[in-house]
Amino acid sequence: MAKRKDQIKLGAFLLFTGHHVAAWRHPQASVGVNFENYIELAKLAENAKFDAIFFADGVAARLKDIEAASRKAHSGVYPFEPITLLSALSSVTKNIGLIATASTSYSDPFNLARQFASLDRLSGGRAGWNLVTSSDPEAAFNFGHDGHILHADRYERAQEFADVVLGLWDSWEDDAFPRDKASGQYFNQEKLHVLDHRGKHFKVRGPLNLPRSPQGHPVVVQAGASEAGKELAARTAEAIFAAQITLEEATAYYADVKGRLGKYGRTPDDLKILPGIFPVVGRTQAEAQEKFEQLQDLIQPEVGLNLVSALAGGVDLSAYPLDGPVPADLPETNAGKSRQSLVLDLARRENLTIRQLYLRVAGARGHWQVVGTPEHIADVLEERFENYGADGFNIMAPVMPGGLADFIELIVPELRRRGLFRTEYEGKTLRENLGLKRPANRFTQAASAAAE
Amino acid sequence: MAKRKDQIKLGAFLLFTGHHVAAWRHPQASVGVNFENYIELAKLAENAKFDAIFFADGVAARLKDIEAASRKAHSGVYPFEPITLLSALSSVTKNIGLIATASTSYSDPFNLARQFASLDRLSGGRAGWNLVTSSDPEAAFNFGHDGHILHADRYERAQEFADVVLGLWDSWEDDAFPRDKASGQYFNQEKLHVLDHRGKHFKVRGPLNLPRSPQGHPVVVQAGASEAGKELAARTAEAIFAAQITLEEATAYYADVKGRLGKYGRTPDDLKILPGIFPVVGRTQAEAQEKFEQLQDLIQPEVGLNLVSALAGGVDLSAYPLDGPVPADLPETNAGKSRQSLVLDLARRENLTIRQLYLRVAGARGHWQVVGTPEHIADVLEERFENYGADGFNIMAPVMPGGLADFIELIVPELRRRGLFRTEYEGKTLRENLGLKRPANRFTQAASAAAE
Repeated sequence: MAKRKDQIKLGAFLLFTGHHVAAWRHPQASVGVNFENYIELAKLAENAKFDAIFFADGVAARLKDIEAASRKAHSGVYPFEPITLLSALSSVTKNIGLIATASTSYSDPFNLARQFASLDRLSGGRAGWNLVTSSDPEAAFNFGHDGHILHADRYERAQEFADVVLGLWDSWEDDAFPRDKASGQYFNQEKLHVLDHRGKHFKVRGPLNLPRSPQGHPVVVQAGASEAGKELAARTAEAIFAAQITLEEATAYYADVKGRLGKYGRTPDDLKILPGIFPVVGRTQAEAQEKFEQLQDLIQPEVGLNLVSALAGGVDLSAYPLDGPVPADLPETNAGKSRQSLVLDLARRENLTIRQLYLRVAGARGHWQVVGTPEHIADVLEERFENYGADGFNIMAPVMPGGLADFIELIVPELRRRGLFRTEYEGKTLRENLGLKRPANRFTQAASAAAE
Repeated sequence: MAKRKDQIKLGAFLLFTGHHVAAWRHPQASVGVNFENYIELAKLAENAKFDAIFFADGVAARLKDIEAASRKAHSGVYPFEPITLLSALSSVTKNIGLIATASTSYSDPFNLARQFASLDRLSGGRAGWNLVTSSDPEAAFNFGHDGHILHADRYERAQEFADVVLGLWDSWEDDAFPRDKASGQYFNQEKLHVLDHRGKHFKVRGPLNLPRSPQGHPVVVQAGASEAGKELAARTAEAIFAAQITLEEATAYYADVKGRLGKYGRTPDDLKILPGIFPVVGRTQAEAQEKFEQLQDLIQPEVGLNLVSALAGGVDLSAYPLDGPVPADLPETNAGKSRQSLVLDLARRENLTIRQLYLRVAGARGHWQVVGTPEHIADVLEERFENYGADGFNIMAPVMPGGLADFIELIVPELRRRGLFRTEYEGKTLRENLGLKRPANRFTQAASAAAE
């Protein structure tokens, strides 16, 4: 197979204290959750020429199992809200992309379109919106609902939401504001376009009360895994934060999603696929393994059991001895046998105790986990990239800031030696660095087409 | 009358290009509307020890009269959205308060509470929320409505909105997050309080998924002028951006609002009243007048007529000669005779031409306007402060950045000579500088009271 001509794109997924479930207890983790910690992380990633920093989000604390929640950092209680956080980081960074997650389920399209366009303007063209739908049942309660919005409806709403947001972002053409002191013309009314959207879920007149942003519009990121999610991504997204674990899954997903682009008039280059990876790196395999075990040892049984329970659809193991076998005769949960089995079959197949089971699945919280030397990790990244399983990766460092610093110190140079990662930013905007086109304003396009 | 023991508080109301309607055409105005302009303005105000910078907002472009709108900077199209803008400014400033306007009519209380709390955390306790209701009929169209929400209902909704936001801000007690690595306790569940609000307009369970912020909660600012607005302010606000023009109006308003605090268990010190002032300062009266005329000469007739029309309830003067008299027999508008008369009576009383009329009312857009020497302006500020017409002022510089720089260079030293304005910040948070108490968490209070 011929080598790819493009290079790996890298995002730093900055989950505070780190992605390992027990990271916050690690001696090197910054648990202070101060803004200064984020400045440090953002600058670390920017100095290493990462494409972007990336923030997850949710709009509810997940407190159903409050005992387990009170013992972990990741219970949906964030130190900062991502749009404000990235805005604050925009003025102390210069080149790195700034991607914030925001939900279409519990946001308003006008306000969201405006805040992301504003961030794009503040940062000189570095904003990205990670479009999610909320699958957290507790979120609905914070927004006037008694129950949860169903999945199919959620995606339908999400697509319409994205259409509205993209439409609002084209309210003004790029040159709509001459601001000519002499003639007194502030804006050119012919370059203003009122959206007047009237759909099933939204009615939004527009225009957005903000000029068009440097990137045309912020980069739209998505994480579609379900059928509806993949279709939404193929139609709308410019980058995907994917979550496949094996190479086979990754290449199949990649081909599947890229294959859907044509029917929306898009090319494979219009969408970058960036799976997450949870890397534990050491100068030797033994050092890497030791680092990992150190984190694993910090997992509290309540937290481990809670994560097994979440992954296995609600099964409750708390009544059984931790160092005894996983019982054979567990009652079936609402989630159904298949989901429950995925985790429990693993335990039976490998004859794991309950503790061994949670250590196996809880640490990286189900993500693609690689423990090894810089060469080994560079190998698996290269393999996945060259085989079209990924256009780049979202780095989920186990502990912050140490895990990200390790990746940069040990793995990035190895990728550069292989010609797989940049030494300088290609451009000034997130789009330019990701290799994405700047979208023309749909109305400017229409006018040009009509004139031809 | 004994001199007041406290000092004047100063806010810088940063309307881009300046508050004069034609400011953007002024040779010294920054019309580039770049973020760098705002950094310059924020640092200017911070170096002068202002309490806060303040941003207006609206959620619609006001384009009904598009010809006039296209000739002015202030048609509701902002270069940035205020929450993102202030977040970006938070990391390049240290002491100055950051007050953003956000509407209760078209925001969601959970998202708004979270973003302002996040800004308070990012800035180390410098956030303020200027709570407004939207009176702009065009805003409704951007949020799924066909018409406008009525005034009484708007304020009722606003009060409930504020109650929800304040409740969410108390979700976690100050010491709810021990984050104790050794014991594994991340948060203390006894310090978590679920709001469970169920009201007429909102149903919000909570808790907010963000720790309590440095100021306890952001400073709540309001601009209540109507009966409903003043009551809302007396119950909820900690600072008021007031808009009275004469000393008599100002002292009457001050006494009125401060007099309402008692019934809500509050003292006069719990609420600071900060009227806006549009100052045009020159080393001599002639220089000040010349500066003002230079701005006035830049007003375009379409814009002037449009502002007269807005102030006079929709009256249309565009068919009459600009340098002829205001006609006596104008048709009555929907706004009714009284509002129309306020402006038209002025014209008749003083025998003004149409151009003279718009020059009289349009420049400062109806705000308290003072044109004079530093001594004169310091005199009127001192008079208003010492007579309890104000606790401080919101400076609406005619042109940015020049008008703000003039105020700082010429008037601030004069206020300091009189002992009326600080030379150093008293504290680190906006509250400390404004002289406002840090609110105890309502649940901590309740627990202490129960224990007594």
